[in-house]
Amino acid sequence: MIYIVGIGPGDREFLTLKALKIVENADLIVGSKRALELFNIDKNKKITLSKNLIEELKNILKNENIKNKKIAILSTGDPCFSGLLKTLLKIGVSEKDIEVIPGISSVQIAAARLKISWEDYNIITLHGKEENLKNLLNLLKKKEKVIFLPNDLKKDVKYLIENGIDPNTKIWVLENITYPNEKISLKSLKDITKENFSYLTVCIYRGEDD
Amino acid sequence: MIYIVGIGPGDREFLTLKALKIVENADLIVGSKRALELFNIDKNKKITLSKNLIEELKNILKNENIKNKKIAILSTGDPCFSGLLKTLLKIGVSEKDIEVIPGISSVQIAAARLKISWEDYNIITLHGKEENLKNLLNLLKKKEKVIFLPNDLKKDVKYLIENGIDPNTKIWVLENITYPNEKISLKSLKDITKENFSYLTVCIYRGEDD
Repeated sequence: MIYIVGIGPGDREFLTLKALKIVENADLIVGSKRALELFNIDKNKKITLSKNLIEELKNILKNENIKNKKIAILSTGDPCFSGLLKTLLKIGVSEKDIEVIPGISSVQIAAARLKISWEDYNIITLHGKEENLKNLLNLLKKKEKVIFLPNDLKKDVKYLIENGIDPNTKIWVLENITYPNEKISLKSLKDITKENFSYLTVCIYRGEDD
Repeated sequence: MIYIVGIGPGDREFLTLKALKIVENADLIVGSKRALELFNIDKNKKITLSKNLIEELKNILKNENIKNKKIAILSTGDPCFSGLLKTLLKIGVSEKDIEVIPGISSVQIAAARLKISWEDYNIITLHGKEENLKNLLNLLKKKEKVIFLPNDLKKDVKYLIENGIDPNTKIWVLENITYPNEKISLKSLKDITKENFSYLTVCIYRGEDD
């Protein structure tokens, strides 16, 4: 069985008891260096993923007897939101060999920080989904509330401005959420194009509220 | 300070370490009987909410010195999704007196159970939001994927059928999620109108996938 374990945004405090239990009882734990560090795991029971995530996962799952072993794959945030569930299904893992353990998504932390309710927002991820940039553009044109995970914020925002969004439009930029260097600021699109942002950024457009 | 603590869908295993810590260090813990039972709390430190949630919360917060005490208010699921954050802001609690601790939403567990990614879905809550029934109707007419929290499923579905949705349309009904009596089934709208469902139900329409 493959357990896709949501580990939350990065801060150990957002781990669930269930995530801790699954990892403790797993025969093999697979994840990024950062993800593995959240747990106390025997050296010989863990595999660190690097950059070629998909190839590495394919190789691990080819070599392991999935049916008889408990394999925990750590997924940042929630595996069901812009997470590893989709990746695993894409590389051909069967649904019946998978159990998903939800985790706290960075979208949820972002909403909590700004004290907004995400049922009132459109939620869009641009991570590996360039086609969503057009959807984001249309929502902003209609001044609809959106929470989005940018792909490359500077580049994404340039596209928005080039396609008619007012450069003075303000959005909340939440960087390195739950990390010691967390930073939350309200910025104009114009100013965003002058900076660089990490991949771990969440953005919120509150419509006419700002 | 008021901590609005997300406690997840009901199973203790979905508590985060952060929720446990906040409750442990709080001076006063307020929640439903079911919510309070997830924690080990001194009798004299807890207040059980009953049905007049809003009035009870108003009274508690009027009588307590919010600034100098740590008050934890337990919220099922995620306080920022169809949760208690909105309720507290509505009764006039100031944003600066609130810290929100996200929790796992029933929407996330439902997505995990069906192994779908919720970034591909519209998410709608009908809890106390009857106006959203019309939005749900429009999405179903366009055969768009939706995860929704019904208000009264039988009644909601009757409305959908009366307004032109094919009674043979199938949706996933996830009842009592994470509880011992959890039940997941694919049902036609027609069949749904013959049954009664608990308030703790999540529904998923997977478009043309079923």
